Amino acid sequence: MERVTVDLGDRSYEIVIGPGILDALGDEAVKLGTGEKMAIVSNPKVFGLYGERVRRSLAGRGFNVGEVIIPDGEIHKNMDSVDHILTELLKMKLDRSSVVVALGGGVIGDIACFAASLYMRGIACLQVPTTLLSQVDSSVGGKTGVNHELGKNMIGTFYQPSLVWIDIDVLQTLERREVLAGIAEVIKYGVIRDQDLFSFMKDNAQKVLELDPDSIVHIIKRSCKIKADIVSEDEREAGVRAILNFGHTIGHALETLTGYDKLLHGEAVSIGMCYEAILSNALGKTGDETVREIKSIVEDYGLPSGMPEGIAPGSIMDTMMLDKKAVGGSLRFILPDRIGSVSIEKDIDKDYIIKVLRA
Amino acid sequence: MERVTVDLGDRSYEIVIGPGILDALGDEAVKLGTGEKMAIVSNPKVFGLYGERVRRSLAGRGFNVGEVIIPDGEIHKNMDSVDHILTELLKMKLDRSSVVVALGGGVIGDIACFAASLYMRGIACLQVPTTLLSQVDSSVGGKTGVNHELGKNMIGTFYQPSLVWIDIDVLQTLERREVLAGIAEVIKYGVIRDQDLFSFMKDNAQKVLELDPDSIVHIIKRSCKIKADIVSEDEREAGVRAILNFGHTIGHALETLTGYDKLLHGEAVSIGMCYEAILSNALGKTGDETVREIKSIVEDYGLPSGMPEGIAPGSIMDTMMLDKKAVGGSLRFILPDRIGSVSIEKDIDKDYIIKVLRA
Repeated sequence: MERVTVDLGDRSYEIVIGPGILDALGDEAVKLGTGEKMAIVSNPKVFGLYGERVRRSLAGRGFNVGEVIIPDGEIHKNMDSVDHILTELLKMKLDRSSVVVALGGGVIGDIACFAASLYMRGIACLQVPTTLLSQVDSSVGGKTGVNHELGKNMIGTFYQPSLVWIDIDVLQTLERREVLAGIAEVIKYGVIRDQDLFSFMKDNAQKVLELDPDSIVHIIKRSCKIKADIVSEDEREAGVRAILNFGHTIGHALETLTGYDKLLHGEAVSIGMCYEAILSNALGKTGDETVREIKSIVEDYGLPSGMPEGIAPGSIMDTMMLDKKAVGGSLRFILPDRIGSVSIEKDIDKDYIIKVLRA
Repeated sequence: MERVTVDLGDRSYEIVIGPGILDALGDEAVKLGTGEKMAIVSNPKVFGLYGERVRRSLAGRGFNVGEVIIPDGEIHKNMDSVDHILTELLKMKLDRSSVVVALGGGVIGDIACFAASLYMRGIACLQVPTTLLSQVDSSVGGKTGVNHELGKNMIGTFYQPSLVWIDIDVLQTLERREVLAGIAEVIKYGVIRDQDLFSFMKDNAQKVLELDPDSIVHIIKRSCKIKADIVSEDEREAGVRAILNFGHTIGHALETLTGYDKLLHGEAVSIGMCYEAILSNALGKTGDETVREIKSIVEDYGLPSGMPEGIAPGSIMDTMMLDKKAVGGSLRFILPDRIGSVSIEKDIDKDYIIKVLRA
């Protein structure tokens, strides 16, 4: 078992990573000193695969465990699902000492911890992420929330979990395309802060894709450590935390424009990383080699690097301006200087961005 | 102008109190360094009385001011109103640097700042409370939220405002019964922490009821100072903040049982204070004099001290157990030792409580 600490004073918590640790969740949970009532929030597929094991592990340590099942998919990441969870928690009579256990991918984690943050103004939330994407990204750092008709992730809270419990064995039941979407975020960590991780990903593609346990634990641990350090430094994204959005400024716009059903998040981020690297290069901030390195690792893993058909650069631009990362009418880009280092750039000329997107 | 600081590190803020200061809100708001977009959230009555003055003050200092009007009353303190506000904020294209201005009583303040806490995971919120109750209590301290069918204030966040702006002149348009409801909370502050404030309220009932400016500024400032100190010490009600609930354990149950339309919050708290004092006395924690003093000041102000007709002690007990202040099946009472000092008591025998409620 590997451990990473997110250091946030009295809201600090542990990320625990290992193979087969799902059955040991109860042993860790008792150490948190909460009340005995818990509610697992999950979707039908994940709950069917792992719900009983998690419940047994918790019940075995004396917890009184209920469940709330939300239909699968990003279209259910909305206030209706949150209302449903809150109503169920009230019916189960959870109190201020009770616990929500988010068992699933990023959507479940975001909704469940959002609901936990609102229930009686906040009860404990345990993240048990079951996709590589949520294990390396969304389960850590306390961003919770849902989508609104008028924009993705527009409604939410900053609310840290009390524990992140990552069993890598659950990746065995994940579709390969979902694994790849998680790999895109690992590559991102390499670009923004860790040349060694980038090299590891480049040199061990075969092992990573075969889900070799040591390699997977290594890349999850490194990714979580980078995210933990950044979040400890800037919990509410007033500064450095923005660098986690490398690839996401363009990536989010692509997800929006393709209706969230064509590209997985990690796929959109892959394309975003390639184009944001090109933008950095076009602005003279980095050499051709950086662009080539990013494009080549993305393609080595079978992730997309080119613009999807039928997406106009102008519409990407318009969509980016509506993103909540745009402040005061100004876009913010995270641009690589070299592999392992990025900087935040504002006020880039819009025509220039469109020209790059057209490239 | 009197100022009180709520000391919470980088989330500290000022409470400003004075007569006729509504027109100076813009001057203070510019000092906060926010973006220019603002949305006033109010109800038709309050917006009709003061909306234009607030808007003019803000627009005069360069802010771009929109508005969202919510129907008046506790029954609209629900997630539907929050959803409506969030949708309007998105339509107005507020960004992370924008500001919500809550102009109204406790309901508006709770809903508007709740919405602000969720919009893009939290934007600035200014509290401009227009009832005595909200001026001395709900606008300070960062408790936001709405009711759920299954319980009052069950859904919400801890989210501090960036400024509390209290113009006492607005109390001139407040119904007398509403003024009295606010006075109940001022009496509460006296009982829990300030014998001098209690004495002032006892000796100056006439002036207070006539809304004498000096007296009103004095009691609001004292109340806010006590609340600010307690909140600075214990923002999330892990300990001492619970003493603010003196009178509320029984009071909330009475509000629930009478359907929120018979008793104002302050009236329910008045009755709650009287009975919680009786409970304290019955447990031998305080003398007869304390009970007499509390009952007599409550009655001097024309506030209710006796149980409303048709409310069974057993049903009060059941309702209290459903309150979110009940943890692990145990009720918590705030009981006076003497005027100016209370302590927190758990695990009081239920039959004993029912006996006192029957008294």
